[in-house]
Amino acid sequence: MLNVQLLLTGNELLAGDIVDTNSVFMAQHLKELGVEITKKITVGDTLSILVEHITTLSTDADVLIINGGLGPTIDDLTAQALAQAAGVALEEHPQALKELQDWCDRRQYPLTEPNRKQAILPKGCDIVSNPIGSAPGFSLTLNNCLVICTPGVPREMKLMLSESILPIIQTKMPADMNNKTHKLKVFGIGESGLQKIINDQISDWPEHIELGFRASQPLLEIKLTAHYLSDHGDLQLWTEKLRRLFSHHVVCEGEGDLPSTLVELLNTQNKTLTMAESCTGGLIAASITSVPGSSAVFEAGYITYSNRIKHKLLGVSEQDLQNVGAVSETVVRQMLIGALNASGADVGVSVSGIAGPDGGCEDKPVGTVWLAWGDKTTQHTQQLYFPGPRRFFQNYIAYAGLDLVRRFLLNYDETPRYVIERQRKN
Amino acid sequence: MLNVQLLLTGNELLAGDIVDTNSVFMAQHLKELGVEITKKITVGDTLSILVEHITTLSTDADVLIINGGLGPTIDDLTAQALAQAAGVALEEHPQALKELQDWCDRRQYPLTEPNRKQAILPKGCDIVSNPIGSAPGFSLTLNNCLVICTPGVPREMKLMLSESILPIIQTKMPADMNNKTHKLKVFGIGESGLQKIINDQISDWPEHIELGFRASQPLLEIKLTAHYLSDHGDLQLWTEKLRRLFSHHVVCEGEGDLPSTLVELLNTQNKTLTMAESCTGGLIAASITSVPGSSAVFEAGYITYSNRIKHKLLGVSEQDLQNVGAVSETVVRQMLIGALNASGADVGVSVSGIAGPDGGCEDKPVGTVWLAWGDKTTQHTQQLYFPGPRRFFQNYIAYAGLDLVRRFLLNYDETPRYVIERQRKN
Repeated sequence: MLNVQLLLTGNELLAGDIVDTNSVFMAQHLKELGVEITKKITVGDTLSILVEHITTLSTDADVLIINGGLGPTIDDLTAQALAQAAGVALEEHPQALKELQDWCDRRQYPLTEPNRKQAILPKGCDIVSNPIGSAPGFSLTLNNCLVICTPGVPREMKLMLSESILPIIQTKMPADMNNKTHKLKVFGIGESGLQKIINDQISDWPEHIELGFRASQPLLEIKLTAHYLSDHGDLQLWTEKLRRLFSHHVVCEGEGDLPSTLVELLNTQNKTLTMAESCTGGLIAASITSVPGSSAVFEAGYITYSNRIKHKLLGVSEQDLQNVGAVSETVVRQMLIGALNASGADVGVSVSGIAGPDGGCEDKPVGTVWLAWGDKTTQHTQQLYFPGPRRFFQNYIAYAGLDLVRRFLLNYDETPRYVIERQRKN
Repeated sequence: MLNVQLLLTGNELLAGDIVDTNSVFMAQHLKELGVEITKKITVGDTLSILVEHITTLSTDADVLIINGGLGPTIDDLTAQALAQAAGVALEEHPQALKELQDWCDRRQYPLTEPNRKQAILPKGCDIVSNPIGSAPGFSLTLNNCLVICTPGVPREMKLMLSESILPIIQTKMPADMNNKTHKLKVFGIGESGLQKIINDQISDWPEHIELGFRASQPLLEIKLTAHYLSDHGDLQLWTEKLRRLFSHHVVCEGEGDLPSTLVELLNTQNKTLTMAESCTGGLIAASITSVPGSSAVFEAGYITYSNRIKHKLLGVSEQDLQNVGAVSETVVRQMLIGALNASGADVGVSVSGIAGPDGGCEDKPVGTVWLAWGDKTTQHTQQLYFPGPRRFFQNYIAYAGLDLVRRFLLNYDETPRYVIERQRKN
């Protein structure tokens, strides 16, 4: 396996002034070649620290990509640090100077002294062309490691990576490496629950299929990776095992999300959706309308925060509101029917609960919620109990609402785990 | 100066599956104390590599913060790695177990084996409480360096940082250091615009008042920091200068946000708000209802995505919808009046626009939007043009709607900069 490591340089990266997306881009594109980054070190613009890390990383890695510090200002130290680590002199590189001169000519800029500094490079290095920026990239073999220096400007780095660096790395790869990944996205099972189910049900997980989890709230992502072409068949096989294991809890696969899955499902079934939201306050609607093209399946949503409006807009009985309260089975059922009638939508979901931090009582503490979902002929209701911070509660319950509609459209009979686990015991 | 370093662990960080924002958050908050991070190392979930870096970093740093690897799954190795680096055993920590049990009790979960693993910690470590998550943090002094282990889940890490870790680090700071910061949050001016205004208007910005900007979309945060007690007076003085310079564009100060500011304003004026949303699809309502206590100022919201529903629910004229289209001054005005009448609210805002990626035309390209706001006696309308990705457009326009209501309630006459800059020129 090729061992690729990254050294990122820039005070702004340590100070939290910018978010590092360069290394994310590199990792994603290297992964397509079947290469994983094994370490990433971020340091400031200090010569001695740069020299130290170039030395140690080059001893460990097959390829070291340095990002940043190629510019014209005095805090750009990468060339100097690499020269020092390699024990070679700095000198003006003719090809670098030519590329720099061409860059200036194209822009009708004069070649200034600070700019010219960018052609002063470690003796013996090779140029890695920068088609759009002024700072040329360069590479040098040190401690049997190919050290490649790239600019920190994202669009320059990206172009240099795809046009020059990935082809160089490709030549260093074993011919049979071929990465493939598959993602399953699950709603309603936590990370520890998921791990437990796998432990309990599968004793012989194979080493050559890498298994990873990532919480992307409120979903949980399961990622399977195979590193060789010969393992791609097994990847499918073990993906299918997990698919069966988590069955109806898998809301989508690949790059989708629950809202986009639901919009697609509604589209396929040629149905429209409406919602009557109290405690989620518009989040269910906002998640549906975040999906491009959602107007084909969505016309109207009702945010009925007060009792008065639940009655006025959706026809919920004033007596029921008074007798059993807004957070009740009766009321969410009436909200659902009211929204279906008012909008003319085919399916709907309604929610009423106590998001907190205030408004709870002994009978109905913060985190208690009732949901209703269905169509004009069949309505289902469910109570859930999900104490937690307000926004967290709202996001989770909005997703529960979307998931219950998804299950309804797919005619699933199974009770979801979160319904079993998240009821309030009296 | 205190030498703080970071060790981030997680295969997903190296694989480019997630963007590291945790270290950005840490850096920003440490900076407020006057502490800079000097190095940041990211490695995968491999025990030997973790042990190696804990050992070397703890030799170099005064404080080492480890982020990630505290969870219940087998790839969570931080406790094991720290124990191995320190040469101590792992054992069940009574306080950690108690916090874990409390966490389970609050959620009415059983304490499962994988969960219980999170209480198995290096012998002699101290617990750093995790008020919202299952995995307790912990700290141990190693090689004269305080090693603090924190969860990778951002909201858990953030709370732990502010409640426990920053106070610990504060005690290690020189006594005359006394950081004080003040934040102004601005809506409707971009970062470069903001920098230009300051450059043009203020030539003598003092070195001892640090000035930083941070885009927390759609707001822009201006942060002023004084590092010594003797500079606190100047901090107030220069904050006041910026406050005057950006005047009505400052939507709030400190930790607030535009939605919380508006809810507070409505509360003070004893008024209720309603909204009729088309292209923002519930985002205005969701942002209002994300604020605790918003039920005092909000009863009803209308998401009228289709023309049919705009007519049916809000009484928008069918003829106008046909003649001038849904994205028009006439229609947003009628949506606003319809929502005010239907809800009985005191003030309202309505939005209709083209979020894209499809649905634009030459007359009204993607990014075109009309807003109306006001009360039953006075309604204002405005066209804006804000081309960009769907979610970005929706978020910005939702905030513009909130801001225009804020300005209406405060009787501001000045035209906001974004209204001047973001109109579509014909």
